[in-house]
Amino acid sequence: MSKPGLMPVEDALDQLLAMANEQRLPDSEPVPLNEARGRVLASDLVATLDLPPWPNSAMDGYALNLADLHRQPLSVSQRVYAGLAPDALLPGTCARIFTGAPLPNGANCVEMQENTEVLEDGRVRFLQPLKVGQNIRAQGQENRVGDTLLRAGKRLGPFELAVAAGQGMTHLPVVRRPRVALLSTGDELVEPGQPLRPGSIYNSNRTLLDHWLRELGCEVIDAGILPDRPAQTRLKLEQLQVAADLILTTGGVSAGDADCLGQVLRDNGKPLLWKLAIKPGKPLTVGHFGTVPVIGLPGNPTSALVTFGLLARPYLLRIQGVEEVMPLSFTVNAGFDWAKPGSRREYLRVRLEGGQAALYPNQSSGVLLGATWADGLVEIPENSTLRMGDPLRFIPFSELF
Amino acid sequence: MSKPGLMPVEDALDQLLAMANEQRLPDSEPVPLNEARGRVLASDLVATLDLPPWPNSAMDGYALNLADLHRQPLSVSQRVYAGLAPDALLPGTCARIFTGAPLPNGANCVEMQENTEVLEDGRVRFLQPLKVGQNIRAQGQENRVGDTLLRAGKRLGPFELAVAAGQGMTHLPVVRRPRVALLSTGDELVEPGQPLRPGSIYNSNRTLLDHWLRELGCEVIDAGILPDRPAQTRLKLEQLQVAADLILTTGGVSAGDADCLGQVLRDNGKPLLWKLAIKPGKPLTVGHFGTVPVIGLPGNPTSALVTFGLLARPYLLRIQGVEEVMPLSFTVNAGFDWAKPGSRREYLRVRLEGGQAALYPNQSSGVLLGATWADGLVEIPENSTLRMGDPLRFIPFSELF
Repeated sequence: MSKPGLMPVEDALDQLLAMANEQRLPDSEPVPLNEARGRVLASDLVATLDLPPWPNSAMDGYALNLADLHRQPLSVSQRVYAGLAPDALLPGTCARIFTGAPLPNGANCVEMQENTEVLEDGRVRFLQPLKVGQNIRAQGQENRVGDTLLRAGKRLGPFELAVAAGQGMTHLPVVRRPRVALLSTGDELVEPGQPLRPGSIYNSNRTLLDHWLRELGCEVIDAGILPDRPAQTRLKLEQLQVAADLILTTGGVSAGDADCLGQVLRDNGKPLLWKLAIKPGKPLTVGHFGTVPVIGLPGNPTSALVTFGLLARPYLLRIQGVEEVMPLSFTVNAGFDWAKPGSRREYLRVRLEGGQAALYPNQSSGVLLGATWADGLVEIPENSTLRMGDPLRFIPFSELF
Repeated sequence: MSKPGLMPVEDALDQLLAMANEQRLPDSEPVPLNEARGRVLASDLVATLDLPPWPNSAMDGYALNLADLHRQPLSVSQRVYAGLAPDALLPGTCARIFTGAPLPNGANCVEMQENTEVLEDGRVRFLQPLKVGQNIRAQGQENRVGDTLLRAGKRLGPFELAVAAGQGMTHLPVVRRPRVALLSTGDELVEPGQPLRPGSIYNSNRTLLDHWLRELGCEVIDAGILPDRPAQTRLKLEQLQVAADLILTTGGVSAGDADCLGQVLRDNGKPLLWKLAIKPGKPLTVGHFGTVPVIGLPGNPTSALVTFGLLARPYLLRIQGVEEVMPLSFTVNAGFDWAKPGSRREYLRVRLEGGQAALYPNQSSGVLLGATWADGLVEIPENSTLRMGDPLRFIPFSELF
């Protein structure tokens, strides 16, 4: 049970995915395989080729027809290399054959060379019992023409692209990149490379999210840092809504006087300020500016990390048509005691050491360094205490990119 | 125990990493943060800035000096927004302050607005007990100038790059990209987009490895398909050894007559043909052509995948200076029985379903499709049988990129 008034993360995810299902990107474009990594397949990939395209040998050895076995030793009538079209097998003979080479018509068995004896006159004696189909990779064993190899909505990595290459394809239809306008709010922010003013800090969230968005196939519209003034905020959002599929902001969403993004959204759209039952990451703004969805992440780097990874990431995959948007998670054992139950579910930065989850010492939401030290997040359920060795749900960071 | 004559994968890895330790790339280059993703940090990242750079408020509320508390209600002498340099706190007053705003000199406590009462005349009454330092993020709480934030050898992802941005940095020194010459051997191979000749198949390994190498920060020299002829093989390797840090081949390494890469290496270098105690992926050629290392992967796609992921990947990370080259792995439960013990350790493509590892039906080494269906690999130890529910080591594919 979460604290009354706080939204469980599952409910937030359900609402965001429902929103994403309404906003799926309709456009697709063909891209060359060498540029398709990280993109999402726009339509089913259907096989145009049997794989293997013809029966071939799984071994270096000899191809024969078993009906000829009683006539052994058999003379070798041809040598069949991979990549060459063989002649039909001359009756009463065998063919020298190599791994991957196509089976000659008329052959129905391959024996590996280790189980044969080559006589002085070159004829071959077969030393072991043989059976039809032995050491032959049948045509279409991997797939048949017309088989669906990959479903629309599949994220394309090296394996998927290699499957397309194996069909002889050079391009794949992919969903167009989501255009995400990335906005940082806060007068305190200065971009790296600029001098730091008194009272200010460098903007790290833009870098965090820029790279992460690109990992997820997005095109990033760098919309800069928004001053904490309503008129300028409104003007900026009006410009961005023309180009963007999503406006993603960090900061400026808590309830303080200085949070003018929320004010502008309230004036212009239908914002929802969610108080999530998670820590870090409590405040999340979800809404629209005109017709463009807006997700407002908290400004603390680790809060931005957790809310982006758990909520915005699935949203951005789903608008690209990805069905399986949740990261794999695993059960690991706590390498620490947790004595103080919290009313919010807590996501802690941990490293796996000797099979146990070791805590980064400083779990403050302002401290991003812990994420570089850690292997992933463990989840401490609401209202729970833990003892060293207790099982915990672990999400590897590698699953979040 | 592995079958006699076969090399345990741990031994192969030890030898490859020893080789990599001798071949670490010495050169580094500065790259802008927005191009540094996936690269490896060439020298320690040392903080040039305290974070936070000054004490600041963790809450929207009021800053005060506790010595003035007996004079409450306190009038509000200034409003401090994030990004502004505040005046020193006027004695006997408090300051309105917002999250992230710098603490005025003289203040030593922040109370959240929820625990205050603002009187009609604007003065503020504090309703709860207060203590020094409350709701203040101390200067340098995250890091101090001179702290080592990231060690040389760290792979740079969104979190690491954001940490650098938080220090105001625009560039990082990274190890130069390893130049990997990627060669496919086999007369049977045709590149996608070309017509398929009788007896031939499309080359999928080039696409698989091209994308995977680029994920690992490598520059790929596409060296094409090598015909199965020794003279041409020799000429090609002579050309490549000038430009490449590693020559990576697929196919052409088994013992058959048609495997001329091995012949050329035996003539020109010091090749080792390793028969690994793993399945798929038994044959692996490791050696040098002149001074350039050569790794020859097997030609079957899944064998190439397993040997690249378990052996060539750690090698390529280590020559870039990465210490932690092994993927995370987890214990999962078998969703299948395994009745036939094998003499080699077996890596099976599985999907996690309801907490159990479900087998892809066709585990043949020629079948790449299983890898697109699967979440990762489980390891079946040598000479073992398994029952449904038995624990198994699982390596998520996400950990291998």
